[in-house]
Amino acid sequence: MARINTAPVKGTRDFLPRDLAPRNRVFQLMRETFERYGYEPLETPAIEHSSVLEGKYGEEGERLLFRILKNGRDLESAAGELLGRAPDADRSAGALARTFSEMALRYDLTVPLARVIAARQNDILMPFRRYQMQPVWRGDRPQRGRYREFFQCDVDCVGSRSMSVDAEMVAIHYEVYARLGFQTFVTQVSHRGLLDALMEACEVAPELRVPARTQIDKFDKIGADGVRAELLRIGLSERVVGALLDALSISGDPFDMLETLTPRLRGTQQGEASIRELEEVFDAIQALGVPKERYELRLSMVRGSDYYTGTIYETVLPGSGLGTLGAGGRYDKLVGMFLGRDIPAVGISFGIERMLVAMADAGLLEGGAITTTQALVTLFSAETTPASLTLAQALRAAGVRTEVYPEPKGLGPQLAFGSNKGIALAFIIGPDEAARGEVKLRDLRTRAEMSIPLAEAPAQALARLAE
Amino acid sequence: MARINTAPVKGTRDFLPRDLAPRNRVFQLMRETFERYGYEPLETPAIEHSSVLEGKYGEEGERLLFRILKNGRDLESAAGELLGRAPDADRSAGALARTFSEMALRYDLTVPLARVIAARQNDILMPFRRYQMQPVWRGDRPQRGRYREFFQCDVDCVGSRSMSVDAEMVAIHYEVYARLGFQTFVTQVSHRGLLDALMEACEVAPELRVPARTQIDKFDKIGADGVRAELLRIGLSERVVGALLDALSISGDPFDMLETLTPRLRGTQQGEASIRELEEVFDAIQALGVPKERYELRLSMVRGSDYYTGTIYETVLPGSGLGTLGAGGRYDKLVGMFLGRDIPAVGISFGIERMLVAMADAGLLEGGAITTTQALVTLFSAETTPASLTLAQALRAAGVRTEVYPEPKGLGPQLAFGSNKGIALAFIIGPDEAARGEVKLRDLRTRAEMSIPLAEAPAQALARLAE
Repeated sequence: MARINTAPVKGTRDFLPRDLAPRNRVFQLMRETFERYGYEPLETPAIEHSSVLEGKYGEEGERLLFRILKNGRDLESAAGELLGRAPDADRSAGALARTFSEMALRYDLTVPLARVIAARQNDILMPFRRYQMQPVWRGDRPQRGRYREFFQCDVDCVGSRSMSVDAEMVAIHYEVYARLGFQTFVTQVSHRGLLDALMEACEVAPELRVPARTQIDKFDKIGADGVRAELLRIGLSERVVGALLDALSISGDPFDMLETLTPRLRGTQQGEASIRELEEVFDAIQALGVPKERYELRLSMVRGSDYYTGTIYETVLPGSGLGTLGAGGRYDKLVGMFLGRDIPAVGISFGIERMLVAMADAGLLEGGAITTTQALVTLFSAETTPASLTLAQALRAAGVRTEVYPEPKGLGPQLAFGSNKGIALAFIIGPDEAARGEVKLRDLRTRAEMSIPLAEAPAQALARLAE
Repeated sequence: MARINTAPVKGTRDFLPRDLAPRNRVFQLMRETFERYGYEPLETPAIEHSSVLEGKYGEEGERLLFRILKNGRDLESAAGELLGRAPDADRSAGALARTFSEMALRYDLTVPLARVIAARQNDILMPFRRYQMQPVWRGDRPQRGRYREFFQCDVDCVGSRSMSVDAEMVAIHYEVYARLGFQTFVTQVSHRGLLDALMEACEVAPELRVPARTQIDKFDKIGADGVRAELLRIGLSERVVGALLDALSISGDPFDMLETLTPRLRGTQQGEASIRELEEVFDAIQALGVPKERYELRLSMVRGSDYYTGTIYETVLPGSGLGTLGAGGRYDKLVGMFLGRDIPAVGISFGIERMLVAMADAGLLEGGAITTTQALVTLFSAETTPASLTLAQALRAAGVRTEVYPEPKGLGPQLAFGSNKGIALAFIIGPDEAARGEVKLRDLRTRAEMSIPLAEAPAQALARLAE
């Protein structure tokens, strides 16, 4: 056989047990949190009909779809069609892709959610609280921290317009990041309608509002002076920019901020509704007990995506240079896309891959186990094999995850294997120990060693592992 | 937007929360069991280089690969190449696929394991005990219980020739099926070399041994008389068939069987080694405490795949007509395929999709929760929303998975929502209850209802859920 490249496909990763140990701990904590808030798991296939995905991600996104080749006969007829086509016919990648493919790999978790909502209308009870943690595939150029196969994690509540659900998004953010050990994160809260109303009140010309929003979004990066310069550059007047920055500089307690804004936004199209909704959200966030220092009303926060229709969220680690760890908002016009009617929804995404990088940088992944295995039982000889196996079963029955070294090698290599793998405890049982009904327990972390009666091994293991 | 087909791609499935509830329980129990035996998780990408997969699954299997279309420019150059090809050039699906694709979706979990073993030689400590539970994709014709996207579950130990590891395969089978609630399963054990030696001892002509093996494999289906007829049909003599069936009819305690076989197989090429290995395996199975009625030495058991080199396993539910629930064996020449040298390995696969069908048929999935959510807190009005949210947080803090009904609808629809979703408990908090510092706890399963002090809600919930 010719030498074959055994590296994983560029932009994809093999996860060895030691990679999965921290990763699965994080995933598990997230699942637990979501379920604690009444969100249930949903899983959809990796493969979708192209017609479901096309037209949803923009031209740029659509080019990144991994399309699946038609099989067998289909492929031949597609090639026949292509070969019969005039040389000047459309040979763009898109046209070719359509000729050879009717399916593609999942690109995000929102379109599949919308598809399931349409396909299973009669099976899904509303409000439908669901989370989904599955890989997606994008033919992007791989770089550090950006992959072609990566996990997304979405938490959404579909079918309710209640602001108490919007508040849950902040509470879930808080609980996930706090439980993961992040110390300084802040969830910024705002509302799509609020900035629009502010611009209306400050008399930003309608055609300048979208470009102005783009500049305001840079507030955290370039500061008030930078934004001022940019707004002037794109054509806002000194007076308008002054009024706008004056409003954007309001900070402090969210309720105070909303009170300050109320008279200014009176009479604007979306101002009063936005303020009312934000008041309800902050009331609910308070009732949910999220600590005050972990969230704020941030008037300059603008989520890029066009599809948000109400509240918006962004969790950042100030000063980390890491960007957004998680974000979301209300989007009442998206999940009904396949049904042709609006279905209200609010949701957040966790940037899992970026969170894992942030946790590694902050040392939050250190100290955790790098293997699921907790105990190693050594093997002395063929004669003592039954004793080793019996001991292992006793440990397992007590819930201790136990591996038996399968070859009667020297004790040194066996213990080195356990240490290198990150196993905490070793149980050494030779003929002398077996004869005395004893076993030697060695803590591979501290190298402490003691002889104990065989029958006490499970209890001793549990006690040491709980330390 | 034109009406789009929102059904999942043929042969793939959406898993709603109520589908995932039993499925995830089974998966979780399996993971726990594997980890208890010291097996660690491994995950590989869905996408593999075609060169890694080609030549591994036979012509039939290779046709079933889901190939991924090259992107953008690559695609145009592939089309250009194809368009420039002479009309009589190779236009087979395979040739076309190679022109347009360099990657394909994972087809099984064994080839990726072998690839990882080669790619990460220096990072993997041997013996390497790993399990892998991930979807695979095959462009098969979908039918009941057969999908194009389905989960496989493999448990393998790579790098050891010790029969104590082979015995673990039986112990893990036993523990998984017993914990899932199966009552009558039996794990049949045999050895590739044993049947070969038996045929040699019974003087089956070498060229007839492979076809004879195929007929012997039908023993459970067509019985001894059926096998006798088939063996005669393919050209074995009466005498040879008589000797063979006489040997195959040996049953009873594995050690007795091996003793009976010992003199008959003396001098055969593989007989003595097979018997010695099986003795070691059964010794170890005994030491691992697997109940005697849950395993047997089955001389007529033949695993189809060619790659087994030693012990083989098959777990069946006698009389269920369901075929094999899980199977495996030792395969010392496969996982080294990319390294060009033998690496010993033994492993089993669990037929997860079939197991779930068997469990549903046997009623083993009934009675379990159909949602992860345990409690519903109702909402009376905007005024009592904070009380409902605060109560929900108290329940969550105690570990109760709690959902708040987000709209102040009538109580009837709220409770119906909880019941229909399969939530066990409802906490009803109106203005009267709130004023008294109380809450009404309703068991949605029994319809029992009682008023309790608010502060007792978490403890009461935990107590009722534990019932």
